[in-house]
Amino acid sequence: MTGKPAVQELKVALLGGGTVGSQVARILVEDSELMTERVGVSLRLTGVAVRNPEAERDYQLPAECYTTDAKSLVRDADIVIELMGGIAPARDLILTAFDSGASVVTGNKALLATHGHELYQAAADAGVQLSFEASVAGAIPILRPVRDSLSGDRITRIMGIVNGTTNYIMDQMDSTGANFYDALAEAQRLGYAEADPTADVGGADAAAKAAVLAHLAFSTPFTLEQVYCQGMTNITDRDHQMAAEAGYVIKMLAIIELVQTADDQEPGVVLRVHPTLLPRVHPLATVRGAYNAVFVEAENAGELMFYGPGAGGAPTASAVMGDTVSIARRILRGGPGRPHTTTGRLKALGVGDSITRYMVVLRTADVPGVLSQVAGVFAERGLSIKSMNQSPDEEAAAVGKQRALLRFITHQARESDLSQTVSAVEELDVVDAVLATMRVEGD
Amino acid sequence: MTGKPAVQELKVALLGGGTVGSQVARILVEDSELMTERVGVSLRLTGVAVRNPEAERDYQLPAECYTTDAKSLVRDADIVIELMGGIAPARDLILTAFDSGASVVTGNKALLATHGHELYQAAADAGVQLSFEASVAGAIPILRPVRDSLSGDRITRIMGIVNGTTNYIMDQMDSTGANFYDALAEAQRLGYAEADPTADVGGADAAAKAAVLAHLAFSTPFTLEQVYCQGMTNITDRDHQMAAEAGYVIKMLAIIELVQTADDQEPGVVLRVHPTLLPRVHPLATVRGAYNAVFVEAENAGELMFYGPGAGGAPTASAVMGDTVSIARRILRGGPGRPHTTTGRLKALGVGDSITRYMVVLRTADVPGVLSQVAGVFAERGLSIKSMNQSPDEEAAAVGKQRALLRFITHQARESDLSQTVSAVEELDVVDAVLATMRVEGD
Repeated sequence: MTGKPAVQELKVALLGGGTVGSQVARILVEDSELMTERVGVSLRLTGVAVRNPEAERDYQLPAECYTTDAKSLVRDADIVIELMGGIAPARDLILTAFDSGASVVTGNKALLATHGHELYQAAADAGVQLSFEASVAGAIPILRPVRDSLSGDRITRIMGIVNGTTNYIMDQMDSTGANFYDALAEAQRLGYAEADPTADVGGADAAAKAAVLAHLAFSTPFTLEQVYCQGMTNITDRDHQMAAEAGYVIKMLAIIELVQTADDQEPGVVLRVHPTLLPRVHPLATVRGAYNAVFVEAENAGELMFYGPGAGGAPTASAVMGDTVSIARRILRGGPGRPHTTTGRLKALGVGDSITRYMVVLRTADVPGVLSQVAGVFAERGLSIKSMNQSPDEEAAAVGKQRALLRFITHQARESDLSQTVSAVEELDVVDAVLATMRVEGD
Repeated sequence: MTGKPAVQELKVALLGGGTVGSQVARILVEDSELMTERVGVSLRLTGVAVRNPEAERDYQLPAECYTTDAKSLVRDADIVIELMGGIAPARDLILTAFDSGASVVTGNKALLATHGHELYQAAADAGVQLSFEASVAGAIPILRPVRDSLSGDRITRIMGIVNGTTNYIMDQMDSTGANFYDALAEAQRLGYAEADPTADVGGADAAAKAAVLAHLAFSTPFTLEQVYCQGMTNITDRDHQMAAEAGYVIKMLAIIELVQTADDQEPGVVLRVHPTLLPRVHPLATVRGAYNAVFVEAENAGELMFYGPGAGGAPTASAVMGDTVSIARRILRGGPGRPHTTTGRLKALGVGDSITRYMVVLRTADVPGVLSQVAGVFAERGLSIKSMNQSPDEEAAAVGKQRALLRFITHQARESDLSQTVSAVEELDVVDAVLATMRVEGD
């Protein structure tokens, strides 16, 4: 139907009736006049495919709007909005949509992080659009800026707070001194964390978003398996205290960076998700509660940051509707859309190739010369230490032992060199234990 | 040439060889391979139109690249990048470009804020593109998010730090206690302020950006004359101190807001630029130095912020090149582009219709009952006061007089009601003078 003047309306099929789906349905119904004004013709919601049509929903449509027959709904649509999540049957339904000439809006990061390349290609082959602004950082417009606004620049690094649950927990630990489990319980009580928080606190949710974002930033297909992922469950209140004393805050970050490999070959991309120390004056350090933010460094633009709500029904629905209106406008204009390019040739590198700094906390003997021995191990390997701080170990003192806590922050170096050096330090006789090793970014 | 398969290159004409123009030339030459990879064919810089071809430039091209004959250059281009600024001859050259089928990228906010409607229409009529991301907030991608990402939402309010010079000066006054003139001199010394800073400190630069942004946000043509504009030259170090004591920081903001008029007619838009108090915890309050940031409130998305360098050769060139690559891709894809719609029907309202809060500082007699008299004037008019603070007036004490300083912050009300009430307060016998009246936003 593309471009034919007779178009009176566009048929929109909605797959999924959960929190976001309900808000999308509400906007399509209650703001239909606004959408008509924006698009030029009306967007008609033809139905909502759900598993259980009888279930109660945040926004209730008449019973006849719900169906379990997603396939038929998809086949009769101009635009399909997929908000069911998961791989199956979402993947098949999206391919079916393309096959019948419909464009697709999705918020399904898990699907994109595993089958993104296939789906981009299928959309391009079918001459239809695939949009997914809602899949990363909820309402924050980040994919369009990365893909289009920075298309004349070279992105060198992206650091994102892309999971509200972990940011809420980290923020609570930082501001109240709570330990991880108390902060998690509070997050669950307030609805910021699920009963099973594994995907959030383990980093998998952020890792999927990192893969999607990296794909757009570097026009190269990356997948979830290429993302190094370290959860936050081992972060203690003492870690937060140590970080605070050094002027840092700990944030759970997704980091995507262009790096030169050690053997000076072609540059590659490291994708990593882990607890990260940031200076308190860094723009990302000021992102509180369940908010999200994405910090982008580009060669010419310099440092940019995009901030906003990273989840929630209405905010995520805003992103979905932005994609829907843009696709609808393009259908009416006619002509081919802009396919997602996968022409890039950058390879994914392991986390050992990343360039970072470490904060290391050691429990050591409380005797002269410890500092010099530790610094010596670093010097031997050509690495240098930026700052060091020594204090009595009060925990040890409480059980009658005299030990020191040695906290130091390194200069920038390749991660693999840093981690090997910390292992060597651990072997020193004067070192009892490595209490914490955390990556430091942003200064 | 649109869409023909034979396209081997796209011809790019550059108008202007200043700071930004030089950086655009550098990128087109030095990153030509990257641009070819991004676009699919090469972007060939056919020449740079300048007033004085002999002048030295930040990035020097071979002498034969410079010309004073802008018109011929434009007539032979596929894409024209206009960075000369000002109304004439920029306006004519852009219309000439459209006329000969070329698309245009511009950073010319003054031109867009006065002739935007005409230019959008001319581009649409000619079936070519007009892009201007660089005209507002330099490298920060804000126009594309406002126009496309939020196209399925209702923007209710935009507050922007869109002028780096004034933000630098305000930040200096806030953080060092400097007065306006010392902070301005420092900004000039560091190159953040021009020798003639009128357009910046007077607010005209920010007002032009507000008009451009409002046009996109509300699909309604707004012009510079519709923006209420109050400069920052009257802001004193005492104002900053008073604001700080109350937990606020003063920022020069451009504000665009959807408001209901007093007579409950159709909603309209108030555009205003003025020094504004923001709570220190507000995301915009943390924007330091010469950085820019735009804070957007939308019905479903909630609160978003976009942050980055608002000026400078390379950052602004990044925005210009993002527009150029996007236009080039669209030319190659064929099909019509997305015109800037001006279908909105919102009217521009005066600043009196805006909804705001005031911080008022009075010099009063130091006798009991002053607070109650002032509060009484507000109560009579149905307005209420949120907080009040009284302290001895040390300036008056220094010359042997006993006076009090009364600082209070009102609740939200219509600006015209607030300003009339402050006039009535000024008439009170116990009030010597109104030392400051400033608008408060963001809480």
